[in-house]
Amino acid sequence: MPCVLRPDITEDAVGGLDSTWNAFRGRVNAALEKYVLQGTGCPSQLQAAMSYSLLAGGKRLRPVLVLLACEACGGSPEAALPAACALEMVHTYSLIHDDLPAMDDDDLRRGRPTNHKVYGEALAILAGDALLTLAFELVARDVQPPHIAAACCADLANAAGAVGMVAGQVADLEAESLTEAATVELLEGIHRRKTGRLLCSALTMGARIAQADTDTLSRLQQYGLNIGLAFQITDDLLDVRGNAEKIGKGVNKDAALGKLTYPSLLGIEASEQRATALIEAACHLLEPMGSRAQPLRDLAQFILHRDH
Amino acid sequence: MPCVLRPDITEDAVGGLDSTWNAFRGRVNAALEKYVLQGTGCPSQLQAAMSYSLLAGGKRLRPVLVLLACEACGGSPEAALPAACALEMVHTYSLIHDDLPAMDDDDLRRGRPTNHKVYGEALAILAGDALLTLAFELVARDVQPPHIAAACCADLANAAGAVGMVAGQVADLEAESLTEAATVELLEGIHRRKTGRLLCSALTMGARIAQADTDTLSRLQQYGLNIGLAFQITDDLLDVRGNAEKIGKGVNKDAALGKLTYPSLLGIEASEQRATALIEAACHLLEPMGSRAQPLRDLAQFILHRDH
Repeated sequence: MPCVLRPDITEDAVGGLDSTWNAFRGRVNAALEKYVLQGTGCPSQLQAAMSYSLLAGGKRLRPVLVLLACEACGGSPEAALPAACALEMVHTYSLIHDDLPAMDDDDLRRGRPTNHKVYGEALAILAGDALLTLAFELVARDVQPPHIAAACCADLANAAGAVGMVAGQVADLEAESLTEAATVELLEGIHRRKTGRLLCSALTMGARIAQADTDTLSRLQQYGLNIGLAFQITDDLLDVRGNAEKIGKGVNKDAALGKLTYPSLLGIEASEQRATALIEAACHLLEPMGSRAQPLRDLAQFILHRDH
Repeated sequence: MPCVLRPDITEDAVGGLDSTWNAFRGRVNAALEKYVLQGTGCPSQLQAAMSYSLLAGGKRLRPVLVLLACEACGGSPEAALPAACALEMVHTYSLIHDDLPAMDDDDLRRGRPTNHKVYGEALAILAGDALLTLAFELVARDVQPPHIAAACCADLANAAGAVGMVAGQVADLEAESLTEAATVELLEGIHRRKTGRLLCSALTMGARIAQADTDTLSRLQQYGLNIGLAFQITDDLLDVRGNAEKIGKGVNKDAALGKLTYPSLLGIEASEQRATALIEAACHLLEPMGSRAQPLRDLAQFILHRDH
């Protein structure tokens, strides 16, 4: 048995993960504030637009993962803070651009008006551009030693770019007109690129900064892909349950609306099984890492059993 | 006398610069094609949108400058090709985003429809994002040794980001409503960030790759800022002359339209003097570098006396 599943788990009761998570999230938030508010030369409106979305709170899943991965490989989480902040900046830029009228045209994000609703489209585009650029500056300048910085920059760029996250976004836009022909492979290919690759780079950057060996690096990479896909499945399942409870809308309604989801393609039960299998495989990959990797196991369990 | 000015110079007759330029431009174009067309995993529409703008031709001023700077410092231009291509990608992304309806709303660029007119706004935004991201991947992965790659990434990001090019774009948008209070300092502050910093990074990256000493690095940096500002002044002067010849429009018409230019703030003669002084200072900075820096001197002269 690679790991024991705990179906009763919630975010507030994930063993020691909760306190570690809060502590790491606090360090990430403090570092993000420092990075985005410090220095001179940034026009105040641009700085305001960047801060508005970057400092909007949230779980900080990606940056905390960088710190957890670094610690699991025996490194100091402090050393991984610049890479952690960089990853959150890339994630935030992608949300700002995704919300634009030309893309998903969203007015709200986490209950607040989206960036372009507050600052206008031009500044929202530029704030996204600036956050993406700042991410690479942080990694290149502040990750040590420099050859690890270069490797992390290459990881992050590959995960975020034309064969990674941006490719996933394009495939997602194209898939909106392809529901009829949709397959699980297509859906998984989209998620792997749209969210999975970036999650993966959290693990690889953390491991690189701890100077982990290549076997550990590739295990953590695969762990990242698995929890990323599982996260997406549970996201889809929460949507269905939430919708069913709140507005009595069934699974097939989503499919009819053209939204490609795991439940609409596989059904609820098979989706749950797929998520469980991915999390079991993720935990299995961590076995050689022993107790230091416990927070990563706890996190995998949280993803499987989260209720929000 | 730091250098002799040659008022009769044109692009076709800049001493040995013309053949060097064409050779370097050819290598840049070939490398850009390789980078943007190679590999798998990039959705074909995204690749098409990226290529459309990246392979649209042009002088390739920025990437050729990277190669010239590297050679002037005794390095191999071949070693500087990844950084050169990266810089052109950053430049191209900035043009794609600047042309968007929410920004300058341009339908034409170099006589062809702008990216979003051909591929739609969503894909244009994403193609810009992907080019910016790919730029950092190239530098981080392909520049050698890795500590130089990290330094170049940091240079490029700082020049392109929230205190560099993006800041200049924001300041430019803000200045559109500020013509009354405009000063040469404000205008120069915009150009220094909007175009000067990126030109500067061409020089610093080329010099770093040649492992130049810090004195040479800072001389080339200052040379870059000077020729960048001079380039902008001659651009403004060409606009005025072009307009005056073609449609009989005088200098003050531009100012009345809210366009902030050197001629509108300083007048034509003082603008010409300012450009000449900047180019003289740029050539003066190159003195310790001897004959290897001749193409950089020729380039400075070309900028001063260009007719297009």
